Amino acid sequence: MEDLPLINAILKHIKNDKISFSMPGHLNGRGFNTKYGDFILSDPFKFDLTESEALDNLHNPKSSIKKALEKLRDYYGSYKSYFILNGSSCSNFIAGFSCFNEGDEVLIERSSHISIYNLMKIRRLKPVYFERELHKKYGIYLSINIDKLKKKIDEHPNLKGIFLTYPTYFGSISDIEEVISYAKSKNIYTIIDSAHGAHFGSHPLLPKHAVSLNADIISMSAHKTLPSMGQTAFLHLNNPSIEKMVDIYFNIFTTTSPSYLMMATLDYSRYFLKKDGYAYYDILIKRCKCLKDKINKTLHKIHVIDDDIDYKIDPTRINLFSEFIFGEELYRYLLDGGIIAEMSMGNACTLIMSPFNDEEEFEKLYLLLRAIDDKITNKSKIMTISIPEIPNLYCNISESLNKENEYVELDLSENKVCAKSILIYPPGTPIIVEGEIFTKKIINYIKDNKNRDIHGLTDGKVCIMKI
Amino acid sequence: MEDLPLINAILKHIKNDKISFSMPGHLNGRGFNTKYGDFILSDPFKFDLTESEALDNLHNPKSSIKKALEKLRDYYGSYKSYFILNGSSCSNFIAGFSCFNEGDEVLIERSSHISIYNLMKIRRLKPVYFERELHKKYGIYLSINIDKLKKKIDEHPNLKGIFLTYPTYFGSISDIEEVISYAKSKNIYTIIDSAHGAHFGSHPLLPKHAVSLNADIISMSAHKTLPSMGQTAFLHLNNPSIEKMVDIYFNIFTTTSPSYLMMATLDYSRYFLKKDGYAYYDILIKRCKCLKDKINKTLHKIHVIDDDIDYKIDPTRINLFSEFIFGEELYRYLLDGGIIAEMSMGNACTLIMSPFNDEEEFEKLYLLLRAIDDKITNKSKIMTISIPEIPNLYCNISESLNKENEYVELDLSENKVCAKSILIYPPGTPIIVEGEIFTKKIINYIKDNKNRDIHGLTDGKVCIMKI
Repeated sequence: MEDLPLINAILKHIKNDKISFSMPGHLNGRGFNTKYGDFILSDPFKFDLTESEALDNLHNPKSSIKKALEKLRDYYGSYKSYFILNGSSCSNFIAGFSCFNEGDEVLIERSSHISIYNLMKIRRLKPVYFERELHKKYGIYLSINIDKLKKKIDEHPNLKGIFLTYPTYFGSISDIEEVISYAKSKNIYTIIDSAHGAHFGSHPLLPKHAVSLNADIISMSAHKTLPSMGQTAFLHLNNPSIEKMVDIYFNIFTTTSPSYLMMATLDYSRYFLKKDGYAYYDILIKRCKCLKDKINKTLHKIHVIDDDIDYKIDPTRINLFSEFIFGEELYRYLLDGGIIAEMSMGNACTLIMSPFNDEEEFEKLYLLLRAIDDKITNKSKIMTISIPEIPNLYCNISESLNKENEYVELDLSENKVCAKSILIYPPGTPIIVEGEIFTKKIINYIKDNKNRDIHGLTDGKVCIMKI
Repeated sequence: MEDLPLINAILKHIKNDKISFSMPGHLNGRGFNTKYGDFILSDPFKFDLTESEALDNLHNPKSSIKKALEKLRDYYGSYKSYFILNGSSCSNFIAGFSCFNEGDEVLIERSSHISIYNLMKIRRLKPVYFERELHKKYGIYLSINIDKLKKKIDEHPNLKGIFLTYPTYFGSISDIEEVISYAKSKNIYTIIDSAHGAHFGSHPLLPKHAVSLNADIISMSAHKTLPSMGQTAFLHLNNPSIEKMVDIYFNIFTTTSPSYLMMATLDYSRYFLKKDGYAYYDILIKRCKCLKDKINKTLHKIHVIDDDIDYKIDPTRINLFSEFIFGEELYRYLLDGGIIAEMSMGNACTLIMSPFNDEEEFEKLYLLLRAIDDKITNKSKIMTISIPEIPNLYCNISESLNKENEYVELDLSENKVCAKSILIYPPGTPIIVEGEIFTKKIINYIKDNKNRDIHGLTDGKVCIMKI
């Protein structure tokens, strides 16, 4: 099988048979294991068809796809909804191209997903940054300070739009309805990246879903939490006045050969939420609560971030924290013990709990955490997460694409202009983006995180503009 | 199942159990029915994973994906190759963004795929059109007149690039190597849309694959002819000087949550071509030759377009022609008889013959065609295909996106400026694009084709600019 490197790696992974508390939402196909999903499970490739009169056309829906999209719209209560087959990244592009023109000033979170930065580049927008606060103890991004955000809006009278993340990778949510109506009163377009919130609203103990917050456009990565294939997503439109533009850019950014298997899983996941969402999430939320309580009551060095903070967190997301072990180490201990977590940051390690994980898996997770808890030495080991402040700007982010560039050693990059953003995965927040000037602090921060998955660093070198 | 409209439509389609001579290339999963494909077939959703250290990351490949891409590069002999998960449309975007800047003049075929028009819009390029000749008898797009094309290049000294389609939807190829080297001598970037040619080169009787023609960038829709999932494609780079830009735009236009199942099928299809391509295509080409001969010798009113034209055609593509029946009617007769063809145009109907179709299916196709041949009355019924000439330009295609527009009855659109291109499917060639002025001839042509799948027409209305 060495002639099939990727298939080989996947087969090895499957053989290891680890328990997954991470994406994708269908959890190795388990999510299709319902009466109405068995059809897909039994022979998925028969679903991977192409457009025809009998099967409708995503670019001009008239029959079955049209009906499926109407049902999606009705479920979330949007004005119009779309199937997205190239991830929420694509949905964010469609949103940004529909609402903004070249040169427009748009407020985005500094911790935005990379796709929003990419949108700034190719639509040639001017980003204005808003920084989320870091929780002092946990060192992870948490909620939005609404007053500060409103002040930021006031400071930029030319703002054309604002992108908000709801929830974050960690599942934290903010009370952004107030900001949305404030922005709307100033004719500022509001777009929500709800990549991690497609399951919201299906149970009263889950936060409200993002469509109900009344923003103009909302992106949801169905594949992250719902039983839907990788890279599938939903785009929801609440504002009829931009429907024409959204239709145009949907067609531009969507393949003319969409996989019907992927679309079928989107149709399925909407129905799953409607029919069985309450029942499945009712069990899951109880399990999560029980697990959290057990961890927080019985373990000594690991605990779940929960009611001890002011912010609301998706009850199906588990953020483990320990002051005695880095998140990355905890992630590895779990992996060595047969459990795949979603990601780590600082002293935290995040797990996405799925309605398709069973009781036994929750128990195994608890037992493994208990064993890890016993092993950890009692010596504080806090990773200071102090994301360096946003560097000074030499030129707008989009201008970098037309500039000559070269690679230099990271150590020699001080005062040089970044030509390729540096991201640390997960969660993939940029440390410095194109057009910004390297500082000593930025360089040191990147060096401090050298064991994580850093994008934008090639053999220890960074890409800078030739000026 | 009415609550699952799309899944319901697919299940009905599957139940009908028709024989498919159309996309996708894996033919309902049959293409994975090999010793090395059984793993994928047995439990596909277990392959639908997410990036991790063990599974590599498409945006920063270091291990298994890197190796898979190197093997892809080596197989086609490119400088570097990429997995594309949003169709050749996405690959064309990456190519165009990497090579061109706003305002650049780019030569494209008027019969280009819609994605190339979309690229013109969002990259704000100035298209210069080159028209393929229509075969006088068959009325379908065939080959490129190389001398005319070179003349066109000479007439536009500011050209920055040229997009060529090789092969067409009908499988016709032109001797474009000469044009490519001519363009290169003038520092014009050459990009090939080889969406329908991913299988080329795997057998000596197939045309050379597009990578060997030495253009700068080549897109191939793996899903169209290879055993790979819907919307999967390859991008091949031959020119190292644009590698950095291609890497940048690859990352911009590619989802950060790629489906590993889709990538696995791309890895698989490359290996399939290398290991078994010759053997499978050897049988397929013989079968196609045999079928063509039988049809042309024994049927009276239907024949296969083959050696009676000057142009070369992919031996695995069957273009049926009859002067007694429209292509659309032939397509329907086939469908009613249980066979799905790929598309129709004028008096032609095109079938994509797959190495995974078996002998029995070929025989059934022949028998059905014979029965249809018997049924057709002996009365000539030629559809005059005279694609109207390219209308006059009011403004560049990209400017339409920022203009106000409205819908008017098609009949009232004469002398108005198009704000939404009109395409007739298949093959999806635009009749009029944004910025061009409606003529009587265009209006009549659209009316004449009202029974086909027309995009850009809403309840008989067209979108025009408010001027």
